[in-house]
Amino acid sequence: MEKNRLEAFSDGVLAIIITIMVLEMKVPHGSDLEALKPVLPLFLSYVLSFVYLGIYWNNHHHLLKASGRVTGAIMWANLPLLFWLSLFPFVTGWIGENSFTSVPMALYGVVQLLAAIAYYILQKTIVAQQGRDSRLAASIGRDVKGKLSPVLYAIAMVLSFVRPWMAGCIYVLLH
Amino acid sequence: MEKNRLEAFSDGVLAIIITIMVLEMKVPHGSDLEALKPVLPLFLSYVLSFVYLGIYWNNHHHLLKASGRVTGAIMWANLPLLFWLSLFPFVTGWIGENSFTSVPMALYGVVQLLAAIAYYILQKTIVAQQGRDSRLAASIGRDVKGKLSPVLYAIAMVLSFVRPWMAGCIYVLLH
Amino acid sequence: MEKNRLEAFSDGVLAIIITIMVLEMKVPHGSDLEALKPVLPLFLSYVLSFVYLGIYWNNHHHLLKASGRVTGAIMWANLPLLFWLSLFPFVTGWIGENSFTSVPMALYGVVQLLAAIAYYILQKTIVAQQGRDSRLAASIGRDVKGKLSPVLYAIAMVLSFVRPWMAGCIYVLLH
Amino acid sequence: MEKNRLEAFSDGVLAIIITIMVLEMKVPHGSDLEALKPVLPLFLSYVLSFVYLGIYWNNHHHLLKASGRVTGAIMWANLPLLFWLSLFPFVTGWIGENSFTSVPMALYGVVQLLAAIAYYILQKTIVAQQGRDSRLAASIGRDVKGKLSPVLYAIAMVLSFVRPWMAGCIYVLLH
Repeated sequence: MEKNRLEAFSDGVLAIIITIMVLEMKVPHGSDLEALKPVLPLFLSYVLSFVYLGIYWNNHHHLLKASGRVTGAIMWANLPLLFWLSLFPFVTGWIGENSFTSVPMALYGVVQLLAAIAYYILQKTIVAQQGRDSRLAASIGRDVKGKLSPVLYAIAMVLSFVRPWMAGCIYVLLH
Repeated sequence: MEKNRLEAFSDGVLAIIITIMVLEMKVPHGSDLEALKPVLPLFLSYVLSFVYLGIYWNNHHHLLKASGRVTGAIMWANLPLLFWLSLFPFVTGWIGENSFTSVPMALYGVVQLLAAIAYYILQKTIVAQQGRDSRLAASIGRDVKGKLSPVLYAIAMVLSFVRPWMAGCIYVLLH
Repeated sequence: MEKNRLEAFSDGVLAIIITIMVLEMKVPHGSDLEALKPVLPLFLSYVLSFVYLGIYWNNHHHLLKASGRVTGAIMWANLPLLFWLSLFPFVTGWIGENSFTSVPMALYGVVQLLAAIAYYILQKTIVAQQGRDSRLAASIGRDVKGKLSPVLYAIAMVLSFVRPWMAGCIYVLLH
Repeated sequence: MEKNRLEAFSDGVLAIIITIMVLEMKVPHGSDLEALKPVLPLFLSYVLSFVYLGIYWNNHHHLLKASGRVTGAIMWANLPLLFWLSLFPFVTGWIGENSFTSVPMALYGVVQLLAAIAYYILQKTIVAQQGRDSRLAASIGRDVKGKLSPVLYAIAMVLSFVRPWMAGCIYVLLH
């Protein structure tokens, strides 16, 4: 019962984050295909972030379904995750507006990394409440991708300054 | 129980998409009726898309009510639908700002078509889980309009380049 | 059970409408009290519309609680109400930006009137489903204000062209 | 049961308020770190307000969980709280855009104070319905911080005009 509201609030924030990213794609003034050109990188960055947020929503859904009761600690651990995800529209707009150049790509990686860490902490908090022998703990123990991704985000951040497109590949592959 | 959250998230996204479209109607600076003139095509495009989204929400509502349990496949099939619907504010603003000219009208049709296909896949996914003999499968089998609409959207897209207003008629009739 | 989703969707739309109105109050560039001056009429128009929407939300809440089951007719009757309410941010911004002059004030009344009519139709639809002898039908029968307000909105619309501030008084009193 | 909708509506409004604050952080046009500089104070003001709203959401959650039934009085008492919280994006953007100078900092305190008072009234309304001997009444009686904060907000407002950074410290400490 109590879980409902934490889920509803997180869903609300995620739904708004997704739709706010669309606002970065400003309606062009011209009416030919040419006018759509400057929108293209913004569209690509939107697709990239939409998939990320879709995955976060899916994982968040499964995580909370597996959790028993919502404690104060879980409520607090959920807020940093929402905070970092709320910065997605900003960094998404920045990489889109600058056609995926170095500094914006690196900052995109920073926000991704911090969101991944926040998600990790939320996961730990829920496992701590469930006990280390629970089914949730076991399924997370096998989650190799979850453990590798922070390392890969860090590599992508460094790569952004040398070859931004290689960082882009990592972001796409980490989906 | 589990369905609640998928519905809530979809409702959230749809509710925000609808209200974000209103933001394209910029508050005019003048204070006479003349000042409202440039807003008129944006208002008409808003009405067109509002009705579409209202219908999508209604159908989505019935579809999920008919579905038994939410599987991972259904959760994934729901995301592309939300993605294409989230592009409605952009294309709605574009056709409104250019008073329903060719290229924007065609792009409007493209997004409509892709949303219709995404909805079709979601429907198939839910039917696959329910079994081909279920009541849902039967009611969809009789859905002639659902099968015709992709064809009509494709026709409307071609028509946009010759007679944009004829494409507009199809969009209105497909409601 | 089924009611949940109609309520959640309406709540979502209403919550977003309320918060989108705040976006019309652009953050001023100066940092003294003088800089707040142009925001003042927008703030007043925001207060006016916030109270209206708060009341609509409250009434909608009670109305749906009283209704038994959500039929297709009720779902359709709910959409026009949401449509007219979704125009509140636009007309609110317009009266605020023009300091409550004639034409914007009249348009504000038009949207209020249409929202009131849409609410009335929704009410009728729910009563029709419940039966004319239900408790809901009785309580609405005594609702004198609900019956008077369309007339008063019409008067306010006419007054807007002569004495905008008198229309404003009616809008405040109709709360 | 009845509580659900009040909670959902409040959650919706809070979720949107949080995400709308991000919109104040405009995507910079440059693509180097220099371009991020003007965004920094806006980011700091966003962090400050995000934490406030996170706390409000948490407290609101506990308060409503403790309340038994939602009466008309509670529904009305909830609206002013949402109203003052809805002004957060505006004052947050204002202090961020002016790098925490006097007048914006004072106005930030005013809105904080009014939100705190609205929350206090909501609390009183719920306690009144529960009875003075309830567990809720007891836990609130011990809430020293809740009683001190209005006084401290008032002090911060005065301090804003002398030493804005001291007001900032109070805002941070009151978290």
